[in-house]
Amino acid sequence: MRCLVLGKDGKVRLQRCPIPFPDSSSKLLLRVLMAGICSTDLAVLDNRIPGPKPIVMGHEFVAEPVDDPSRRLCVSEINLTCSTCEYCAQGISNHCINRTVLGISTDGVFAEFVQVPCENVHYLPQSISLEQGVFVEPLAAAIQSVHTGNITPEMTVGVLGTGRLGLLQIQVLRALGCQDIIAIERSPEKLGLAEQLGASEILLLDEVGRLDHFPLDVVIETSGSPDGLQTAMGFIKSRGTIVLKSTPGSPALMDLTDIVRREISVLGSRCGPFSEAIELLRRGHIETKPLISGYFTLEEFREAFELSQQHNAIKVLFNMGSQS
Amino acid sequence: MRCLVLGKDGKVRLQRCPIPFPDSSSKLLLRVLMAGICSTDLAVLDNRIPGPKPIVMGHEFVAEPVDDPSRRLCVSEINLTCSTCEYCAQGISNHCINRTVLGISTDGVFAEFVQVPCENVHYLPQSISLEQGVFVEPLAAAIQSVHTGNITPEMTVGVLGTGRLGLLQIQVLRALGCQDIIAIERSPEKLGLAEQLGASEILLLDEVGRLDHFPLDVVIETSGSPDGLQTAMGFIKSRGTIVLKSTPGSPALMDLTDIVRREISVLGSRCGPFSEAIELLRRGHIETKPLISGYFTLEEFREAFELSQQHNAIKVLFNMGSQS
Repeated sequence: MRCLVLGKDGKVRLQRCPIPFPDSSSKLLLRVLMAGICSTDLAVLDNRIPGPKPIVMGHEFVAEPVDDPSRRLCVSEINLTCSTCEYCAQGISNHCINRTVLGISTDGVFAEFVQVPCENVHYLPQSISLEQGVFVEPLAAAIQSVHTGNITPEMTVGVLGTGRLGLLQIQVLRALGCQDIIAIERSPEKLGLAEQLGASEILLLDEVGRLDHFPLDVVIETSGSPDGLQTAMGFIKSRGTIVLKSTPGSPALMDLTDIVRREISVLGSRCGPFSEAIELLRRGHIETKPLISGYFTLEEFREAFELSQQHNAIKVLFNMGSQS
Repeated sequence: MRCLVLGKDGKVRLQRCPIPFPDSSSKLLLRVLMAGICSTDLAVLDNRIPGPKPIVMGHEFVAEPVDDPSRRLCVSEINLTCSTCEYCAQGISNHCINRTVLGISTDGVFAEFVQVPCENVHYLPQSISLEQGVFVEPLAAAIQSVHTGNITPEMTVGVLGTGRLGLLQIQVLRALGCQDIIAIERSPEKLGLAEQLGASEILLLDEVGRLDHFPLDVVIETSGSPDGLQTAMGFIKSRGTIVLKSTPGSPALMDLTDIVRREISVLGSRCGPFSEAIELLRRGHIETKPLISGYFTLEEFREAFELSQQHNAIKVLFNMGSQS
């Protein structure tokens, strides 16, 4: 099969590898139909998130089981867990000590085929398209931010960053019923889209300033900037909550004094509930079309990664069905 | 009256100032009997916590109302609030927008007299001595850390730093009924005292290492080190809670990726409930004698500040009753 392999030399190559052969009946072989490039992939690419190499990249995808004649679309959770460690025993297997993660620490989905544990698979209702299904994983993460921050509809919520994740986050908040969703971004390009997708107010970072009591109950940091927390601290209320969602993968100089002085809660949030994401898509609450910046074949991976690194780009997709 | 004034030139001087004259019936004039030097005072002293100057320093104290013939001992909350702003209206007046804070943004207690709002005053039961009462403010803060972190007796709790605050924190956890209290410190000097006061385990930071899954449910950061959070992240469990208590007042280089990846909660905690602190002291749950490193008169302020900055020192007190 064809797959995109990140080598020990840090370079990506399109390679031909053997199709994985499920080593037990608890694994399912999936034919990947569409896959999305996530900021985490870009961090893996430039080693800000280190891991074993060579590795097949990618973790956001829609597929169909090879052995299923009904050709139902499915997605898969990305954490492959041991089900025996203390975290698995506590029901938080996303933090399994022995876990591997698709495309980060075990072979991922920028490939024609991938094998995953049966228990990780979620089938999609027929009303959900390929282009919607490929957003299930990041959408689940955006839903998790709402759970992590205990966000309720009457809160004023800031979304810092209007990229891949921020634009999903805004839609999740809109679906929750939030009326006051403030999109905050460094540059103006994507603020229009943020408004179109549900932000009640759009602000350039420079406009917000560093007001000591800008009245935001919650800020969800999705910008991916290493100093995103410091920025968010500039407009959160005292006793407010900052949900950290994006993984910068590099350090920044930070003064945490204000977290103590103003009793701010900073809550890390990672993977989320696939079933809730599928349900939001099924109900038509999430627009995915405006988020798609381009389709590429695996052969066009250089162009795909290049586009996804551009500031204006949102979600760049690999369409495995087509071959260039 | 005599008082210690931090001037615009950043130097402390013993000065004679007029005794404050309460400008309304809602204020009470107190004769300060004993005051403690806190790490915050040291941060004010070297401008890591900036504020208006000249200012009378100090915020931890025991006093008696000047007009009260019964000479009951009392303490006072340190936040002077407006009672009308949005935070006061919500009952979290510690975060009052218009607040001033004793010894930080308004004249404090390293003085023979201080005036405070009547509503800030808490009278002490007769069984509580001067030397115990002077710990009410930092003890309340240590209690707040338990509330902030939702700490319950069955949890394994790490206390990072065994200084002024850490040694109170350990005792508060012991009083709560915690069995697993791990004291962690950079240098060995105070670990013996930590054990004596209730730590079930004492560890040098170097011994802990950076184990990825050191099984601490909660870490309370009391070390005052700018990189305390980064250190605590080294031994907190996934989905664990780090309570930030100490205010470093200076920045450090930090990589927050792990907060997201391991879904850690970082919760700032500042001032606490005086009434609960007084109750813990009344019940005899808190030993204060071992925490006292020396008594000084106001005239001996240079020696007092010098001692309080030494690594081995714990609480340094000004005894206002005596004059050198």
